[in-house]
Amino acid sequence: MSTEKNRRIVLASRPNGEPLADNFRMEEAGIPSAGDGEVLLRTLYLSLDPYMRGRMNAGPSYAPPVEIGQVMEGATVSQVVESKADALRAGDLVLGYCGWQEYAVAPAKGIRKLDPGLKPVSAALGVLGMPGLTAYTGLLNIGQPKAGETVVVAAAAGAVGSVVGQIAKIKGCRAVGVAGGREKCDFVRGELGFDTCVDHRSPTFVGDLQAACPSGIDVYFENVGGAVAEAVVPLLNPFARIPVCGLIAHYNATGLPEGPNRVPILMAAILIKRLTFRGFIVSDFASQQGDFIRDMSAWMRDGRMNYREDIVEGLENAVPAFQGLLRGRNFGKLVVRVAGAE
Amino acid sequence: MSTEKNRRIVLASRPNGEPLADNFRMEEAGIPSAGDGEVLLRTLYLSLDPYMRGRMNAGPSYAPPVEIGQVMEGATVSQVVESKADALRAGDLVLGYCGWQEYAVAPAKGIRKLDPGLKPVSAALGVLGMPGLTAYTGLLNIGQPKAGETVVVAAAAGAVGSVVGQIAKIKGCRAVGVAGGREKCDFVRGELGFDTCVDHRSPTFVGDLQAACPSGIDVYFENVGGAVAEAVVPLLNPFARIPVCGLIAHYNATGLPEGPNRVPILMAAILIKRLTFRGFIVSDFASQQGDFIRDMSAWMRDGRMNYREDIVEGLENAVPAFQGLLRGRNFGKLVVRVAGAE
Repeated sequence: MSTEKNRRIVLASRPNGEPLADNFRMEEAGIPSAGDGEVLLRTLYLSLDPYMRGRMNAGPSYAPPVEIGQVMEGATVSQVVESKADALRAGDLVLGYCGWQEYAVAPAKGIRKLDPGLKPVSAALGVLGMPGLTAYTGLLNIGQPKAGETVVVAAAAGAVGSVVGQIAKIKGCRAVGVAGGREKCDFVRGELGFDTCVDHRSPTFVGDLQAACPSGIDVYFENVGGAVAEAVVPLLNPFARIPVCGLIAHYNATGLPEGPNRVPILMAAILIKRLTFRGFIVSDFASQQGDFIRDMSAWMRDGRMNYREDIVEGLENAVPAFQGLLRGRNFGKLVVRVAGAE
Repeated sequence: MSTEKNRRIVLASRPNGEPLADNFRMEEAGIPSAGDGEVLLRTLYLSLDPYMRGRMNAGPSYAPPVEIGQVMEGATVSQVVESKADALRAGDLVLGYCGWQEYAVAPAKGIRKLDPGLKPVSAALGVLGMPGLTAYTGLLNIGQPKAGETVVVAAAAGAVGSVVGQIAKIKGCRAVGVAGGREKCDFVRGELGFDTCVDHRSPTFVGDLQAACPSGIDVYFENVGGAVAEAVVPLLNPFARIPVCGLIAHYNATGLPEGPNRVPILMAAILIKRLTFRGFIVSDFASQQGDFIRDMSAWMRDGRMNYREDIVEGLENAVPAFQGLLRGRNFGKLVVRVAGAE
């Protein structure tokens, strides 16, 4: 072990708008001990995801907030240090939900053991993990893409969006990404194989999107909201489906945007074009985990599913990395390497 | 025949906001003749419905607009005056789509003959017609009400809303209406048998609606938009379904409402509560006509489906009646008696 202490990042105060460094606090605590049926886990990789911004707010959402003074939540790839449960042994690699810290104790029951042959093991936090399952279940259950249709994916270079577009291609659709900046757009087209990708930072974005979708849009996978969504709505075809997965453009907002109130435009589009907007959370489709792993593993073997990871070194860099994520600065699935071993 | 001429109301100009008398023109034309396979129909009843406001606008919608100088469209209960088709005979009562006029020629093919025992025959334009089918298909296919759930119905005293709430009751739900004014609310509770009805004109509307839905809202049947919808969204339960059938509060709008832009509130609710908003038009579910007639006829026989008609005398009164419809002045299904015979 690299230290006798457990370093951890707790929520120091609730942000008003963008999270500031002050909203977090690095602490040191003792390393906890596993009780009966529990394991002591050491964090190898911590996943950073946009949903964590929501957990920093008070008030009701689909999950309870992180309380002030509590360790920030998050999925981890962890290694068993000590086991007091039959199902797991020291050295096992597991998918944990240990949060922003170096060590955690967890009940062994319900912990998923990872295939030690998985390379890189951090893929369990991305393409083969929650973001991949989010993409898979949202697109297939709600988006219901049919061959020949046009699927537009917001945040196309991100952990979820990159998978959505590639599944759309596998299903025979035209995949159009939306991403911020030329470098990300090149990646989405070149490495991920989308048909095209439109830069939402360009002053010609609205026209570029329209040109990229000559047959309109049948599925819009919503990760961002804001101006991207506003440009998409007029291009939606009758009976289009909109899985609402995230709204990262809104997460740091401290108030509503200036008027006019555009709700009537959105509602008229829903009515006249018979659109389906449906929000979802990955846990709604937890029962499809088996299908997901089977399909995704096959697509990766066949070279039909590419991905990129944005690996940040050291727990002490988690906060700036998370701040950058909310500004779209990451490139690929953002993970923090907390301990060096693999 | 009461006249040798065919009186008809055409679209004289497109309205900007509320339709004015000037936007319509009453004309007299010759009575047309039926060709081979056609019938000459005389209008007994003309249905007036909110969707007609949309047809007065230029530009794309789910149906082409009425052109300037064209007869206003609309469903009718008509009587065959002359038939040059085998399937229909003079005297037959049919469901036509003859528009705002006294006579029309139509191909016999596809015209639905009405049961001459149907009393009143105008019910074919309401509870047993398009509005009834709209309520039935939208609620059952999209709303998917389950026993014990709370169903909120906007425009609950109207042709569609009144049926929605009664079907919700039949399915074992709590039916909460929203209507304008005490008289309509009394009707919705008393004659239609909703559990309760909230007056959206009351200054305490928002609180009244909340009090009427102690377990939240599982299905919101959207007919109106505007302030009613804004009061509903915070009360929606996780996984609520919102069939979007109409937006009458918006139809006469000449611009967007003042800000702030409330789209982020709506989208956040969709995401966090995993809502399904789905627009529909009755023709999307035309294949369910048989089921509808079977179920609705049975419910009417059993006394479980009540309705009220608001009958206006004479084609010359169609325009003010339609203007009143858009202001919520009608009470029950609005129909114009064009010719006296039945």
